[in-house]
Amino acid sequence: MNTRKFQAILWVAALFMLAGCAGPVIRGTGDLGVIVERATGSVQIVDTSKRVAIATVKGLGDLSHASLVYSRDGRYAYVFGRDGGLSKVDLLRGALERRVMQAGNSIGGAISQDGKLVAAQNYAPGGVKVFSADTLELVADVPATYGAAGLRSKVVGLADAPGNRFVWSLFDADEIWVGDFSDPYQPQIKKFKDIGRAPYDGLITPNGRFYLAGLFGEDGMALVDLWHPERGASRVLSGYGKGQEKLPVFKMPHLRGWAVAGKYAYLPAIGRHEVLVLDMETWLEAARIKVSGQPVFVIARPDGRQVWVNFAFPGNGNVDVIDVEKRTVMKQLAPGRAVLHMEFAPRGESIWISARDDNRVVVYDTENFSQRGVLAAESPSGIFFTSRAARIGF
Amino acid sequence: MNTRKFQAILWVAALFMLAGCAGPVIRGTGDLGVIVERATGSVQIVDTSKRVAIATVKGLGDLSHASLVYSRDGRYAYVFGRDGGLSKVDLLRGALERRVMQAGNSIGGAISQDGKLVAAQNYAPGGVKVFSADTLELVADVPATYGAAGLRSKVVGLADAPGNRFVWSLFDADEIWVGDFSDPYQPQIKKFKDIGRAPYDGLITPNGRFYLAGLFGEDGMALVDLWHPERGASRVLSGYGKGQEKLPVFKMPHLRGWAVAGKYAYLPAIGRHEVLVLDMETWLEAARIKVSGQPVFVIARPDGRQVWVNFAFPGNGNVDVIDVEKRTVMKQLAPGRAVLHMEFAPRGESIWISARDDNRVVVYDTENFSQRGVLAAESPSGIFFTSRAARIGF
Repeated sequence: MNTRKFQAILWVAALFMLAGCAGPVIRGTGDLGVIVERATGSVQIVDTSKRVAIATVKGLGDLSHASLVYSRDGRYAYVFGRDGGLSKVDLLRGALERRVMQAGNSIGGAISQDGKLVAAQNYAPGGVKVFSADTLELVADVPATYGAAGLRSKVVGLADAPGNRFVWSLFDADEIWVGDFSDPYQPQIKKFKDIGRAPYDGLITPNGRFYLAGLFGEDGMALVDLWHPERGASRVLSGYGKGQEKLPVFKMPHLRGWAVAGKYAYLPAIGRHEVLVLDMETWLEAARIKVSGQPVFVIARPDGRQVWVNFAFPGNGNVDVIDVEKRTVMKQLAPGRAVLHMEFAPRGESIWISARDDNRVVVYDTENFSQRGVLAAESPSGIFFTSRAARIGF
Repeated sequence: MNTRKFQAILWVAALFMLAGCAGPVIRGTGDLGVIVERATGSVQIVDTSKRVAIATVKGLGDLSHASLVYSRDGRYAYVFGRDGGLSKVDLLRGALERRVMQAGNSIGGAISQDGKLVAAQNYAPGGVKVFSADTLELVADVPATYGAAGLRSKVVGLADAPGNRFVWSLFDADEIWVGDFSDPYQPQIKKFKDIGRAPYDGLITPNGRFYLAGLFGEDGMALVDLWHPERGASRVLSGYGKGQEKLPVFKMPHLRGWAVAGKYAYLPAIGRHEVLVLDMETWLEAARIKVSGQPVFVIARPDGRQVWVNFAFPGNGNVDVIDVEKRTVMKQLAPGRAVLHMEFAPRGESIWISARDDNRVVVYDTENFSQRGVLAAESPSGIFFTSRAARIGF
């Protein structure tokens, strides 16, 4: 080979290397987020400072009811698909890093306190599977087996807790399980039985102390104090709808997007046009706030001065903003048709709201309710910002 | 120029470009942090997942009593030097991005809710200066002028609050000022006067609602409810040391590293071997916890189950861990000589502690108190993790 040819080859090689290194952008990840596009099995990666989309990642399977959690460094999103797919998305390269099919029907997940374990909660086969956050290799498999016949329950309400624990509920078994994964290959599972009929979702308080499961089979919620598991599970808000005519339930509320402001938790009342205010010291109902529909997500602004609520059909084009001090709706917004999710900027100056049937995400200023931006998206559902990586119970 | 020469030039250019792009690492910023090395005017950039230092940045001037805040994206640290230098450090490139001398004597700063403004609190000339987070260009200058003679006060206790506000205290003027920087070029300043003698530091509650200033000139603290500025400032914990012999104060406590767990705030008692427990509903003293020295920093683990305390000389080689439920010291650690600061991992599984006179930073597991790592550092003082970018009042 002559020098010239050699130089030409070097030149081409250098160009390729340049092309490769020009790909991922050097940037901080603290102001990134992901919007789930449920119909197309894709996600958009967004910059919350500039309020723009920076990449689309496809090939994530069935993303109806999808949720995700973030790696400790904020670079990767772990997306839990309804079809049991678990996808690791690289926000900086805008690419799918890894993907495993881990179940037949899955409903979300969580990441451990130390960031090393990703847990998926599955309907079928019912149970929790725990993976290495790094490689997505299976680390632990905890089937939700219950009763004498050895049936398997659907798992719901999975959340992370301090001490590298995960907590989840067994919808069919009326149980709450707490798994200590300090030694991930030898998890220690503690089971709370007869916690109430048909837990359908769960939440953990921002300090990681209390786990609350909503009950679909009865009025009320189940409560476990994770600082004192020896005290067992108790029942709170029992009979909050007692003696009143039941409304048809158009969509199950979500508890994961809990609202806790001060000592009060704000909770969606199933089927009722009400938000329940729960005093977390006495565990008694402190108030009910009338809202314009059946609440789905009830989420506090990070400073706890407002609580934002979206709704089931037919009121699902509206969002109510509750003034926490006055306990009344202070503002109603109409971001678009089929509002599915809302996410606050980490320090609360703005909120991003997905309007599925209008294929857009609308950004509002939370102080004066002015519109700060609109992003086009394909049937957007969940919106998740990387600041979740630093929070307990997200 | 012949083809060959042209190719050679292209080749060299390509090599340079490759070298350039090999520099900064593509990585998430969510698990980065900065350790201030006060004696050498340098900072170490650390990776909290691997618990290693990844870069050292020099040339930041006098870093005694230095603190810093983070850009919204977690990429840049704004370091406030004692000499009035304000340095913008790029964590990804491990380099000093920009630096301005903005005062003669400065004591820290804050970043606005929207991440666009960086504010410095200055002793001399006394006041607050506000800069563009992007360029470090001066945006607003608010001299701390007070009284008929137009004197200027030292400014202390600067904190950010929702609504793009900053709050600070005037040590010499006994005043608290709240500045609304929604229009940064036309800040609206509200002044609270006669708030108590000699405010020496301040803190804002995690929800951004209450501002508390510690008073050096009298027992007690000044309180402003930022949701209701019309109610004025009030006094809390008045006379907590009344009737008792005053101890000599070896080092002023810091309030910025507040501890709030549930409805209680844990505060250092000036000069006393005690941590005061303040009920934030009644604003009355709820308890006192005996500790092994004069507390300096009193900081809650993110889940609020423990409060960690370090001390002034001569007990400054110890750290006490308080069990919040039992209100007693459950553990004492000896990380090294002259413990100056402590920082929790975002979700609390570990804590980093600087021991200045042993030139090291020690990392502990907060569940079992085992040592997880040791990093060498030159006279380390403040430790700050990027997760602060997503928090109010940090």
